[in-house]
Amino acid sequence: MLIVKKFGGTSVGNKERILNVAKRCIEDYEKGNDVVVVLSAMGKMTDDLIKMAKDINPNPSKREMDMLLTTGEQTSVALMAMAMNALGVPAVSLNAFQVAMHTTHAYSNARIKRIDTDRVNNELEQRKIVIITGFQGVDRNENYTTLGRGGSDTTAVALAAALNADSCEIYTDVDGVYTADPRKVENAKKLKEITYDEMLEMATLGAGVLHNRSVELAKKHGVQLVVRSSLTKEEGTVVKERVARGKSEISGVAGDDDAARIAILGLEDTPGVAFKVFNVLAKKNVNIDIILQSVGEPGKKDISFTVKQEDAELAVNTLRDYMSEDDYRDIDVTTNVAKVSIVGRGLKDHAGMAARMFEALYEAGVNIRMISTSEIRVTVIVEEKDMVKAMNAAHDAFEL
Amino acid sequence: MLIVKKFGGTSVGNKERILNVAKRCIEDYEKGNDVVVVLSAMGKMTDDLIKMAKDINPNPSKREMDMLLTTGEQTSVALMAMAMNALGVPAVSLNAFQVAMHTTHAYSNARIKRIDTDRVNNELEQRKIVIITGFQGVDRNENYTTLGRGGSDTTAVALAAALNADSCEIYTDVDGVYTADPRKVENAKKLKEITYDEMLEMATLGAGVLHNRSVELAKKHGVQLVVRSSLTKEEGTVVKERVARGKSEISGVAGDDDAARIAILGLEDTPGVAFKVFNVLAKKNVNIDIILQSVGEPGKKDISFTVKQEDAELAVNTLRDYMSEDDYRDIDVTTNVAKVSIVGRGLKDHAGMAARMFEALYEAGVNIRMISTSEIRVTVIVEEKDMVKAMNAAHDAFEL
Repeated sequence: MLIVKKFGGTSVGNKERILNVAKRCIEDYEKGNDVVVVLSAMGKMTDDLIKMAKDINPNPSKREMDMLLTTGEQTSVALMAMAMNALGVPAVSLNAFQVAMHTTHAYSNARIKRIDTDRVNNELEQRKIVIITGFQGVDRNENYTTLGRGGSDTTAVALAAALNADSCEIYTDVDGVYTADPRKVENAKKLKEITYDEMLEMATLGAGVLHNRSVELAKKHGVQLVVRSSLTKEEGTVVKERVARGKSEISGVAGDDDAARIAILGLEDTPGVAFKVFNVLAKKNVNIDIILQSVGEPGKKDISFTVKQEDAELAVNTLRDYMSEDDYRDIDVTTNVAKVSIVGRGLKDHAGMAARMFEALYEAGVNIRMISTSEIRVTVIVEEKDMVKAMNAAHDAFEL
Repeated sequence: MLIVKKFGGTSVGNKERILNVAKRCIEDYEKGNDVVVVLSAMGKMTDDLIKMAKDINPNPSKREMDMLLTTGEQTSVALMAMAMNALGVPAVSLNAFQVAMHTTHAYSNARIKRIDTDRVNNELEQRKIVIITGFQGVDRNENYTTLGRGGSDTTAVALAAALNADSCEIYTDVDGVYTADPRKVENAKKLKEITYDEMLEMATLGAGVLHNRSVELAKKHGVQLVVRSSLTKEEGTVVKERVARGKSEISGVAGDDDAARIAILGLEDTPGVAFKVFNVLAKKNVNIDIILQSVGEPGKKDISFTVKQEDAELAVNTLRDYMSEDDYRDIDVTTNVAKVSIVGRGLKDHAGMAARMFEALYEAGVNIRMISTSEIRVTVIVEEKDMVKAMNAAHDAFEL
């Protein structure tokens, strides 16, 4: 078996943890498996490097930032190879150049285009554990690139696909994917399995232990993922195309209390209004989450959307600067709201799921401010103080 | 003009120093010159990385050590590019891969074989300052290598040769090469010029501000070096093939108090004895400095040599383990000795130089324990406590 194992920055944060990860990898190696390990930068190293850079240049070029940040994973992989050697096992570390890991040249947000497998296979044939830098790549001109948030997960999945691995294990500080955040919902249970699509919705909702892009890539290449803890031997959660599920038709409940709702009331009901509004916000790099448009007074419409709380002020100021006072009646901002979502294939198959959620919230006395749905997700906006209550009510309603 | 400028770890040890170096480079750039900058790792970063590694594996593989250490210079060059950008000048950082800097595959002690100049020239043509990692290279199989002590100087010289640079400036924390260490010899003066050969002897004697290999390489390719301070605007010392010199026929006096003298007395006077002695020491990685062999009792010989003080115990134990008691009469160790040397072309041209030194030491009341000479150097071993006195006496004798 060829196993790709990915460990995040916390899992390699110090000497003891590095040795712990080394031992886990060696267990698989000694059973006769080929083992490829993907690592992030140690603990807070990436943050420290960013701080160092911004101290010298508040607005550093992305090209040079990627050049700087890639030292982080290189440090991790070299130390891990030393740790495995110390435990008596042959190992070799490879960075993005050495693999090579070809990406687009979008510094700080590159996409993997192609992975050369010759070097990796060659080292595996020599019965070495191969330790590869996550998060980083090289563009056509041999500049370093990085893959953005969650990039190491993406590296692991892409490697698993390129190497035709039998398994891709993503190790995190939680022991799997839960039906809800256990810190908020007492009855939350670990899922044995979840589909790619459900995982994607969970990730988007801020509840994900995996980054979106890595799940998309896994779905595209049919790479079966296992999410598990680097600290325990628990089985973890398998992410795959289809799952067998019992009576609960939904896979989980997600909550995100970092949301602000902005409503532009009394906009002229003419074509292109929505485009103009969101275009100007996009130019200011305001990240829009849920968008709703509803009919207002005759000839008018209201547009509501949510943003992260830190972006609310910028969004409102941008809108007021951009639009003349005749364009709208009022802009309404509520910063203390939260999103609560249910996610599951069941939503696609059975009517009434959304209604069951709304009923549960009604019975819990939670007022719904906005509703948005996708094929496998129902999201409601509630007051921030009601979030946990709403999550528990929804969780219980679906007997998760 | 194409100028290669090399700055050591102290010169880029923190934000202020990085910005200071950036400004100096920009001065040359703004005069219309092409500027290539070679950097070492920041301050104590290399030492910190070595410590981190040895904590995980007391005997780390050299391949992985080089993989780890190369992150040091990469950090420096990325931050320097950001600093230059912050000062409004286009700059790009390149590591050994990106250049590319081809070396042998002797990890931790590689030699530069060939430098590709396309990428560097291309960036220069775009009027960017090009900042390159010193100390590191890549072998034929794309593994990282490092060049050993003083490696960044070698990188700078090799780049200057490959790029056909008009000037190669080595910036250090002293403002040039002195006739003696100014902390020890009050009348020490900065040299305007020194030959490669003299510089090589000075380097070997521990008084060098430049590493041997870089001077050898400069001599081989006729690269004229300038040694100067990164903190002042002083002119520095030029290192080249021939120099015009006044009445002083020697260029300097060097002292090294980290020496121990070991004498093996009464060895059998048969062929191969010296070989066996030094072979067994080499295997234990004991670095031998000066070797003297003299005739002892009839049929016997004495061999004396110097080592660094920290190696003295290992050397003696190795010899005692290796040789049977019949092989020699005694082993004599003196750990508190020092080397004092005079270096200069004059020694080759004029007789009596050595004698003048011995006379000066005699008059200063310094007892000479050993003497060793090369074409342009005379070295004496004296008691450690006499070193500074001996250096001053020699310095005065030659009216430096």
